[in-house]
Amino acid sequence: MSGRKDEELQGVTLLGNQGTQYLFEYSPDILESFENKHSNRDYFVKFNCPEFTSLCPKTGQPDFAAIYISYIPDRLMVESKSLKLYLFSFRNHGDFHEDCMNIIMNDLIKLMDPRYIEVWGKFTPRGGISIDPYTNYGKPGTKYEAMAEHRLMNHDLYPEKVDNR
Amino acid sequence: MSGRKDEELQGVTLLGNQGTQYLFEYSPDILESFENKHSNRDYFVKFNCPEFTSLCPKTGQPDFAAIYISYIPDRLMVESKSLKLYLFSFRNHGDFHEDCMNIIMNDLIKLMDPRYIEVWGKFTPRGGISIDPYTNYGKPGTKYEAMAEHRLMNHDLYPEKVDNR
Amino acid sequence: MSGRKDEELQGVTLLGNQGTQYLFEYSPDILESFENKHSNRDYFVKFNCPEFTSLCPKTGQPDFAAIYISYIPDRLMVESKSLKLYLFSFRNHGDFHEDCMNIIMNDLIKLMDPRYIEVWGKFTPRGGISIDPYTNYGKPGTKYEAMAEHRLMNHDLYPEKVDNR
Amino acid sequence: MSGRKDEELQGVTLLGNQGTQYLFEYSPDILESFENKHSNRDYFVKFNCPEFTSLCPKTGQPDFAAIYISYIPDRLMVESKSLKLYLFSFRNHGDFHEDCMNIIMNDLIKLMDPRYIEVWGKFTPRGGISIDPYTNYGKPGTKYEAMAEHRLMNHDLYPEKVDNR
Amino acid sequence: MSGRKDEELQGVTLLGNQGTQYLFEYSPDILESFENKHSNRDYFVKFNCPEFTSLCPKTGQPDFAAIYISYIPDRLMVESKSLKLYLFSFRNHGDFHEDCMNIIMNDLIKLMDPRYIEVWGKFTPRGGISIDPYTNYGKPGTKYEAMAEHRLMNHDLYPEKVDNR
Amino acid sequence: MSGRKDEELQGVTLLGNQGTQYLFEYSPDILESFENKHSNRDYFVKFNCPEFTSLCPKTGQPDFAAIYISYIPDRLMVESKSLKLYLFSFRNHGDFHEDCMNIIMNDLIKLMDPRYIEVWGKFTPRGGISIDPYTNYGKPGTKYEAMAEHRLMNHDLYPEKVDNR
Amino acid sequence: MSGRKDEELQGVTLLGNQGTQYLFEYSPDILESFENKHSNRDYFVKFNCPEFTSLCPKTGQPDFAAIYISYIPDRLMVESKSLKLYLFSFRNHGDFHEDCMNIIMNDLIKLMDPRYIEVWGKFTPRGGISIDPYTNYGKPGTKYEAMAEHRLMNHDLYPEKVDNR
Amino acid sequence: MSGRKDEELQGVTLLGNQGTQYLFEYSPDILESFENKHSNRDYFVKFNCPEFTSLCPKTGQPDFAAIYISYIPDRLMVESKSLKLYLFSFRNHGDFHEDCMNIIMNDLIKLMDPRYIEVWGKFTPRGGISIDPYTNYGKPGTKYEAMAEHRLMNHDLYPEKVDNR
Amino acid sequence: MSGRKDEELQGVTLLGNQGTQYLFEYSPDILESFENKHSNRDYFVKFNCPEFTSLCPKTGQPDFAAIYISYIPDRLMVESKSLKLYLFSFRNHGDFHEDCMNIIMNDLIKLMDPRYIEVWGKFTPRGGISIDPYTNYGKPGTKYEAMAEHRLMNHDLYPEKVDNR
Amino acid sequence: MSGRKDEELQGVTLLGNQGTQYLFEYSPDILESFENKHSNRDYFVKFNCPEFTSLCPKTGQPDFAAIYISYIPDRLMVESKSLKLYLFSFRNHGDFHEDCMNIIMNDLIKLMDPRYIEVWGKFTPRGGISIDPYTNYGKPGTKYEAMAEHRLMNHDLYPEKVDNR
Ligand SMILES: [Ca+2]
Ligand SMILES: [Ca+2]
Ligand SMILES: [Ca+2]
Ligand SMILES: [Ca+2]
Ligand SMILES: [Ca+2]
Ligand SMILES: [Ca+2]
Ligand SMILES: [Ca+2]
Ligand SMILES: [Ca+2]
Ligand SMILES: [Ca+2]
Ligand SMILES: [Ca+2]
Ligand SMILES: [Ca+2]
Ligand SMILES: [Ca+2]
Ligand SMILES: [Ca+2]
Ligand SMILES: [Ca+2]
Ligand SMILES: [Ca+2]
Ligand SMILES: [Ca+2]
Repeated sequence: MSGRKDEELQGVTLLGNQGTQYLFEYSPDILESFENKHSNRDYFVKFNCPEFTSLCPKTGQPDFAAIYISYIPDRLMVESKSLKLYLFSFRNHGDFHEDCMNIIMNDLIKLMDPRYIEVWGKFTPRGGISIDPYTNYGKPGTKYEAMAEHRLMNHDLYPEKVDNR
Repeated sequence: MSGRKDEELQGVTLLGNQGTQYLFEYSPDILESFENKHSNRDYFVKFNCPEFTSLCPKTGQPDFAAIYISYIPDRLMVESKSLKLYLFSFRNHGDFHEDCMNIIMNDLIKLMDPRYIEVWGKFTPRGGISIDPYTNYGKPGTKYEAMAEHRLMNHDLYPEKVDNR
Repeated sequence: MSGRKDEELQGVTLLGNQGTQYLFEYSPDILESFENKHSNRDYFVKFNCPEFTSLCPKTGQPDFAAIYISYIPDRLMVESKSLKLYLFSFRNHGDFHEDCMNIIMNDLIKLMDPRYIEVWGKFTPRGGISIDPYTNYGKPGTKYEAMAEHRLMNHDLYPEKVDNR
Repeated sequence: MSGRKDEELQGVTLLGNQGTQYLFEYSPDILESFENKHSNRDYFVKFNCPEFTSLCPKTGQPDFAAIYISYIPDRLMVESKSLKLYLFSFRNHGDFHEDCMNIIMNDLIKLMDPRYIEVWGKFTPRGGISIDPYTNYGKPGTKYEAMAEHRLMNHDLYPEKVDNR
Repeated sequence: MSGRKDEELQGVTLLGNQGTQYLFEYSPDILESFENKHSNRDYFVKFNCPEFTSLCPKTGQPDFAAIYISYIPDRLMVESKSLKLYLFSFRNHGDFHEDCMNIIMNDLIKLMDPRYIEVWGKFTPRGGISIDPYTNYGKPGTKYEAMAEHRLMNHDLYPEKVDNR
Repeated sequence: MSGRKDEELQGVTLLGNQGTQYLFEYSPDILESFENKHSNRDYFVKFNCPEFTSLCPKTGQPDFAAIYISYIPDRLMVESKSLKLYLFSFRNHGDFHEDCMNIIMNDLIKLMDPRYIEVWGKFTPRGGISIDPYTNYGKPGTKYEAMAEHRLMNHDLYPEKVDNR
Repeated sequence: MSGRKDEELQGVTLLGNQGTQYLFEYSPDILESFENKHSNRDYFVKFNCPEFTSLCPKTGQPDFAAIYISYIPDRLMVESKSLKLYLFSFRNHGDFHEDCMNIIMNDLIKLMDPRYIEVWGKFTPRGGISIDPYTNYGKPGTKYEAMAEHRLMNHDLYPEKVDNR
Repeated sequence: MSGRKDEELQGVTLLGNQGTQYLFEYSPDILESFENKHSNRDYFVKFNCPEFTSLCPKTGQPDFAAIYISYIPDRLMVESKSLKLYLFSFRNHGDFHEDCMNIIMNDLIKLMDPRYIEVWGKFTPRGGISIDPYTNYGKPGTKYEAMAEHRLMNHDLYPEKVDNR
Repeated sequence: MSGRKDEELQGVTLLGNQGTQYLFEYSPDILESFENKHSNRDYFVKFNCPEFTSLCPKTGQPDFAAIYISYIPDRLMVESKSLKLYLFSFRNHGDFHEDCMNIIMNDLIKLMDPRYIEVWGKFTPRGGISIDPYTNYGKPGTKYEAMAEHRLMNHDLYPEKVDNR
Repeated sequence: MSGRKDEELQGVTLLGNQGTQYLFEYSPDILESFENKHSNRDYFVKFNCPEFTSLCPKTGQPDFAAIYISYIPDRLMVESKSLKLYLFSFRNHGDFHEDCMNIIMNDLIKLMDPRYIEVWGKFTPRGGISIDPYTNYGKPGTKYEAMAEHRLMNHDLYPEKVDNR
């Protein structure tokens, strides 16, 4: 019935697992990967993560964001349930919006060594202003490094309408 | 009354056919093609397929997606009713989202040998995260190969707003 | 400069206060009220609270919701910053969606003794289904009790479109 | 940490359970209920279920719908994971749209004996026309019977815009 | 596999039928009905028909509309494919918008003898103005007659925004 | 080909007429009516008129509005092209928004003697504020008079979101 | 050219006036009225005012809101430019949201003595929560008093979606 | 009053003409052109044509589409009323979606010999899938030929959301 | 209080001026300019003008459009109130849509001698088709000429959805 | 708990501070910066500021805008609460829209010396026209200067729909 054989799912320990533990302090080790079966080809995988929450590092007040993660895999791919648990682990962790986005990208680079990756966070406002950090990366010394520069240069030419409602 | 003569519709056996059989296991052989009458020109055909469903390869749980398929035909074109039946054939088939999109593209390349093709799946969330794979292809050794690289480099600079509702 | 004199703001200790403490376990005592200056008149106050999060009581997984609270004040009104802190206090608390909404309404009734109140939660989906509890209350033995019944009978005749994206 | 004690979750066997079985033939027995802790009060619970699929009883072609279920519980409530599995069980079952909605409501009445319930299905088009059945029920001989009649009389005075795209 | 037995589908000759004839002159006889299996209960069925076209009776110019048909069945229900063919039969027929809507309702009343029915057409503009007729009916001498009056009195209190684009 | 016979279109002189004259000063005489073929029944006809423009009576500055006109015909109906020309005739006419809506309704009452009618204008802002007058009428001494009162009492409980952009 | 004669515009001193003074402290005296020419009839006038700003009475921080004002005039109507200047006069004034809405309604009642009036403010969030007060009034001892109660009872059954973005 | 003199409108015979004939079989000869007064400059003209309908060449079933036509004129421009009549002429004509779009573009090239042109059709679904063909053209041997290639390479990187409703 | 000194506002005679004259015949002389204080830098100014109306040159029927004007100033900038009066002056002027857009751009080039400018009109439909002309210009012999060509080549790759409602 | 250590927050004096002073005259000195911890990488930070208000330099009338600020930090970043206070300081300051946007960008360049920055203001209409200035900057003599030119050249090819409502 399934296109993935059991041995192709070996690194995947969390998906469908009962009794999942939810960690609410920053836990990069929870991330799991599995093999890319189409590494002969460049293609994108995007994760839409509208349920991200962390704390303000100075006041401790909760922050909320939608995070969009897109990458071109090389040999490895991030398993989505482990990504969910990893993002949950920011729940009681304090950091600036800009730092969170860079940390998430760094951890995913370390896990997967992707050809290309980008992370975009869109936070809810505090005091009438909201902050949206965007960071990206292409494997140094490859064409993906130029791709990262190209995508940054063309980033968000059309800011979405925000009216705080 | 019709711009297509009967002999130009010869390969088309499913369209308007009574008693269609619906297969719910992966069936690439069901795909049918017909002749491109405008092969002197590059043009795009897009299929919007918001009724795609398959199963999770590990848990067996149903997944749902909208799939967008765009291609520039060469000599052959895929007939839309056979494409419908082909996509239905994933109904009780288990595979990762990323694998499904690559398999669909591979099958359509094999059927039509198109100049260019791309497949984008937008799935509903599990555990608060949704996954959107995008893969594309240009005929190797032609300008369409560069086209594929160009479109991948500029892919999805504006992720749609997702809030899981 | 201000339409409210200092003595009219006496019960309000959290608004504009430095060093706010954020409690992440259910803390109904944090709620504060102030005097209604227009109790000669029935009028509505609505709070839009799209940043609510709690935990599943069985699995411990985080849940997310937008909560809409509407009430007709009698003698007292709930102060909005204390309401914010109260809602934050569900952050690491586990309960079913339906229970959370009833608890919030019970606590606000206890705090303010309002003429009328209603609480509507709209949660994000788990496994493709989302849950939206709605509960309301009118002071027993008054016309507001009939009002509650009337509003329940006419509740949500037009469910919003939900597609999990 | 949790507002529901273990003994209050006794009837709930599927939530958080590993190795869930997915049945794709109509299986009303899979539905589970748990106790309503707020039966002193009338309140609504709504399920948004945009991932419903069944088969045409005559042609066998897959159908797709978003289903909206709203009810006022009496002593029992339907557990949401069991509802998900129940709706999945229509996957390879054939029936007319109108019949499916009435069957779902009948099964939930049998399970919970609710004070009031309504079920609204919004299907995708076939041949340019889409069908949206709506059915409701109030416990006979109670005020909820009049409520059902009232809500039917005021049902859908504002049909949503549909353009098949 | 199917909830409808063959004998319950006897009146249905067009659904899934090969070689359907498309008539483009007004043909009320094409309408087919089938038995309502839930006549013990009042419930609504709505058809969304955004692909309606007819001709102006004076100039012959094509008109376009979305038509929304809602009814409470009594003993019979209209089969959707026959409804599609019936609506197609206005394609080369000329009549005023207001007349078309009343004719469609009259024909469906004659076919099904429903408890209640309403028909709402929303046309595209000519010369900057668009016309939306709405007509309804309840079986005379029953409570559905009062229902029709009630729904007319509350019809369209919120006209949708129209800007001709 | 047409459902309206020529003699049923006798009062209609402007529809399809070449060489239409456009008057830009208030011209109520231009309105034309035709016979209602369904006067046995109450039904609504709505005109969406988003291209209305007049002048400010004090400054002479142009004003712009979308006007929504709904009525239940008695014996006569207003012909839509003559309505278009009538609305054009306000183009160089100066009057307050509130006066324009009442004048339009008065003229249509005089023309058609309808059972019920309402006129809603939604103007563009001047100085950051926009004005939306709504007026209605039911034939005195009939149930339509009560209908007018009922609809006024329930008018616009949900003001549309306006942000001047 | 104008439907209003000069003598009918006598009370109107600000409209079209050069050298308008903008007051940024609460100035109810700036409001001007003019005569209602259609007082034989009940009708609504709505003002959409999305550019309202005031200050927090405790912290001095600016607040922003869209205000919707609807009324049925009796003998007098509020002139829109004077209303604009009046609303501007809250710019450097501090008051709670709920108080502002009641004050605005009180001032307009004093100016116009309307049959019915309602004021709805929709503010931007502070700390993730936004507040929307709604107040209304019907002339005591008239049917408009019952109208006010009716509209309050049916107020905002469909809270708009708010996500703070 | 007019910026176009009569002699500049000589080729325009249909605009404002009484007694227009509507042809419902493919009639390319009906197209009319007029002179481009700004041929010193490259500029775009777009036609939005959401009321296109034709027939399926195999089953005869009606198809519906919105067509978007954009071009840079050279010496001639297509007159819009003749374009309307031309598009009407597909009403009872049968052809595949992809063929229709190419035929329309070919006919407009023949009529106007434009510097650049593109035609995009967006059809309603059949069997859950909709088809959107896009074709373009730049005058061979000019920079517009490269423009066509550039626009094709960048075509539709952001497919609109389609959900068949 | 103001960042602009009086002498920097010398050319501005209409802004805030009482007794403005509204001309409704094409009047390019009404346009006024003022000095660009940031000419050391390239930057864009866009005017959104959704209240444009003119007449059809052949039939005299009113046309309506939203016009979007964007430019990079050189030494001079167009004052917005004079632009408003200029656009008003097309009110009773007859011209084709395509001609109007080119004339407006020509007049603004003559007034300001900008580095770059573009004008986009989006008209309401007549007979089911709407027309959107777009024209642009870069100062000849400068890099802005190439910019104009670049923007034209990439113009409107994503036509907005138009359905005439 | 926090990813930022206290010494990394040293320049941040306003965030979480009680007794904030709100200045309503232009005060660039209020801006504060903190250190960029990811200066090894180019990334974007965007501020959505929909609550901007200033005064017209000639008439003194309040203006309202949403401002979007995006930048690539070099060594320093602007702290968001100080940015809020800075934007508040335009509240009683008079300047043209185009001047305000350039001044804001100049002040942020002076504060942070960023690699790249852009500021886009979208104002509400006066007299039916709204103005949206956009200005940007790349550090002279670096690749970011070319980036600024590239982004200006591709700026706003898709003006958002504006209808003043
Ligand atoms: Ca906030
Ligand atoms: Ca928003
Ligand atoms: Ca989920
Ligand atoms: Ca959504
Ligand atoms: Ca959604
Ligand atoms: Ca269909
Ligand atoms: Ca749609
Ligand atoms: Ca529209
Ligand atoms: Ca708006
Ligand atoms: Ca929002
Ligand atoms: Ca279909
Ligand atoms: Ca859709
Ligand atoms: Ca039209
Ligand atoms: Ca539209
Ligand atoms: Ca204005
Ligand atoms: Ca708008």
